[in-house]
Amino acid sequence: MSTSVEIICIGTELLIGKTLNTNGHWLAKRITSLGLKVRRITNVHDTIDEVSKVIQETLQQKPLFVITCGGLGPTFDDKTLEGVAEALGCKIEVNKDALKMIEEKYQRYMERGLVEKLELTPPRVKMAKLPEGAKPLFNPVGTAPGVLIKHEGATVIALPGVPSEMMTIFEDSVVPLLKAAAGNKVFFETSLDVRGIMESDIAPLIDVVMHDNPYIYVKSHPSHTGGKVPHLELHLSTTSENSDTAKKMVSRALVQLSELIKDKGGKIKLSKAKNIS
Amino acid sequence: MSTSVEIICIGTELLIGKTLNTNGHWLAKRITSLGLKVRRITNVHDTIDEVSKVIQETLQQKPLFVITCGGLGPTFDDKTLEGVAEALGCKIEVNKDALKMIEEKYQRYMERGLVEKLELTPPRVKMAKLPEGAKPLFNPVGTAPGVLIKHEGATVIALPGVPSEMMTIFEDSVVPLLKAAAGNKVFFETSLDVRGIMESDIAPLIDVVMHDNPYIYVKSHPSHTGGKVPHLELHLSTTSENSDTAKKMVSRALVQLSELIKDKGGKIKLSKAKNIS
Repeated sequence: MSTSVEIICIGTELLIGKTLNTNGHWLAKRITSLGLKVRRITNVHDTIDEVSKVIQETLQQKPLFVITCGGLGPTFDDKTLEGVAEALGCKIEVNKDALKMIEEKYQRYMERGLVEKLELTPPRVKMAKLPEGAKPLFNPVGTAPGVLIKHEGATVIALPGVPSEMMTIFEDSVVPLLKAAAGNKVFFETSLDVRGIMESDIAPLIDVVMHDNPYIYVKSHPSHTGGKVPHLELHLSTTSENSDTAKKMVSRALVQLSELIKDKGGKIKLSKAKNIS
Repeated sequence: MSTSVEIICIGTELLIGKTLNTNGHWLAKRITSLGLKVRRITNVHDTIDEVSKVIQETLQQKPLFVITCGGLGPTFDDKTLEGVAEALGCKIEVNKDALKMIEEKYQRYMERGLVEKLELTPPRVKMAKLPEGAKPLFNPVGTAPGVLIKHEGATVIALPGVPSEMMTIFEDSVVPLLKAAAGNKVFFETSLDVRGIMESDIAPLIDVVMHDNPYIYVKSHPSHTGGKVPHLELHLSTTSENSDTAKKMVSRALVQLSELIKDKGGKIKLSKAKNIS
């Protein structure tokens, strides 16, 4: 079974450089830590066409999950669910459970004096309009619920764009589904800080270590060479069914890489190993 | 003529949540400020297949520019140019101009004592292997040059992933091309800070203002409703041929929106208007 996840971040603010996409970064980190693989993060404009198109394109990859972020609110530009419905070929309709969640929210907002009337105006009802067959995911922090729809083996999940709302719904309602899909997989990573040897001279050493340790992924992240001494971070990671095995595999590659670098005159410092799941 | 730009950020570090994609954000802001429109920012893994696939997909959109970021260095995972070549159906070959640039770099690294030998090892030569017909773009900050290739009306530009290198090559070699393509276009934006009125109650006001000001794009960015008073940022922007016209159009929409919000009991504060080009 594929364990791939597609992240789609929706909002023109991302494409005019107004907003830095911290949501996509946070989601990628959490999903990876749970042992699943993010194939792409795609940022698109908030039009029905763009959303529908990217959902269709990603579904062709047969992912396990498609997670969208942004565009669930009450304003004209919150078009994610219309785009999802168009992509899946289904209608948008008021979902009773979602409407109940929203009514209860405005009841509480009234009690707190945040709104004058309880009335379910069209922008408020809009947040309860979901694709047919969808399930709302309770939003403990804000108003618009998240949304879950199953489609031909894939689970499409729409989360709000406000980070605190996105993170809370993800932890409460999405993590259990991802854990069940990933089984016991664990992601393990560590880093080496390397000084005094240029990336072009480290390249063949990485080739040796990756050849000898086929399950370990080694990546170099250079700082620019403007400084007096070359400076790189080497990042080693693996995904495994077993935490101890992952740790042992990474450690073995790390020792080999460290020795090779020291032989070439590089200076190394070990960052703290992390099991981020 | 289309004025759309595709940004493609390449690197597994983006998809495991190790690196926050500040490059894509910076590029989107700069490109928008020059009057061009970014259609998508896509983050993909650094495999030849993934790079080739995303380049082919984006070229189908007939963009003016495709700008990639990352994957030009000397290590095994720097596969951007192989992916681009595969997508364009051309060969990879050592480019004389690129090789000369790289030789001169290592000459200087030697003078500074950063490397022992001047020898052009395979990882060093790798950075000079460009798709046929490509032109290297001088990298004043690091080693690997940027790359420019014209393909059926689109200009594909590959930039390094180290931010200082990416930004410098962009400013030196890419901005003149974008300016020539955009003509006199200017992007103008401003923001209103709004308190005391919920997003669902502002939604119909935005509809009125956008209807009356068809060239102005208004977007609401809510903070979460956990605070005592609802708090939003309303962002108004336009792209125009003329800076004065842009300013007047945004100002007119801003005044109308402010009046409508005050009528509903909201409190507003004007952020500094920005012409970011």
